[in-house]
Amino acid sequence: MKKDLKVGDSVSISKVFSDLEVRQFAEISGDTNPIHLDEAYACESFFGQRIVHGMLLASLFSGLMGVKLPGEGAIYLGQTLNFKAPVMIGERVTASVEIINIRQDKPIVKVRTLCINDQGQVVIDGEAVLKV
Amino acid sequence: MKKDLKVGDSVSISKVFSDLEVRQFAEISGDTNPIHLDEAYACESFFGQRIVHGMLLASLFSGLMGVKLPGEGAIYLGQTLNFKAPVMIGERVTASVEIINIRQDKPIVKVRTLCINDQGQVVIDGEAVLKV
Repeated sequence: MKKDLKVGDSVSISKVFSDLEVRQFAEISGDTNPIHLDEAYACESFFGQRIVHGMLLASLFSGLMGVKLPGEGAIYLGQTLNFKAPVMIGERVTASVEIINIRQDKPIVKVRTLCINDQGQVVIDGEAVLKV
Repeated sequence: MKKDLKVGDSVSISKVFSDLEVRQFAEISGDTNPIHLDEAYACESFFGQRIVHGMLLASLFSGLMGVKLPGEGAIYLGQTLNFKAPVMIGERVTASVEIINIRQDKPIVKVRTLCINDQGQVVIDGEAVLKV
């Protein structure tokens, strides 16, 4: 264990994903689902408007864990993602990661990963496991 | 259930993520972990070279499911991701999704999501749950 990590340690980041970012992500990833890109299609859909890709939102967790907590050198072993509510383009979200368990026998930590919107609604809940 | 889905139905896609795509993804997502971006840092790291973001790889599953199987209109409820091996920049991977369960009581399907490299090694294994 390289760092002085404690259960309860947490960090967060707020972000608004723009139309341009969503379009760029669609191009890079090949995820061109019209629910993310096509205004007319999205208007008629279940959500009524275009939404941000779930994996783009989840990358906020990856960024927090890889850069801040546990930080550089952490190796991503697993992630669960429960998508609870859609996030519209231009909507602010806050992603947070919190250490919930540190194994005594191995340098492995479990992290709660949570993303909420400005109404306090959970949009993604899940857990990650990392080698530190 | 809008479509004639069957257990065993599957689709796949092959992709090589380039240096430019990884850098663009880092910028969009804010995941600027040097293991993805900094050659000198990565050389000294556990993996010995720069690797593709796990969430960028996982977006191949999202794309396949949202565009091809089950296809448009599917709503992403959950995803598990087990990261088994790193993927280097410029390395070809093949992501596949296969329907493994269709609920009888609700329009909900479970999908196995698998990503392998050209040596046949599993790089990501997991499952997704979607409303169709």
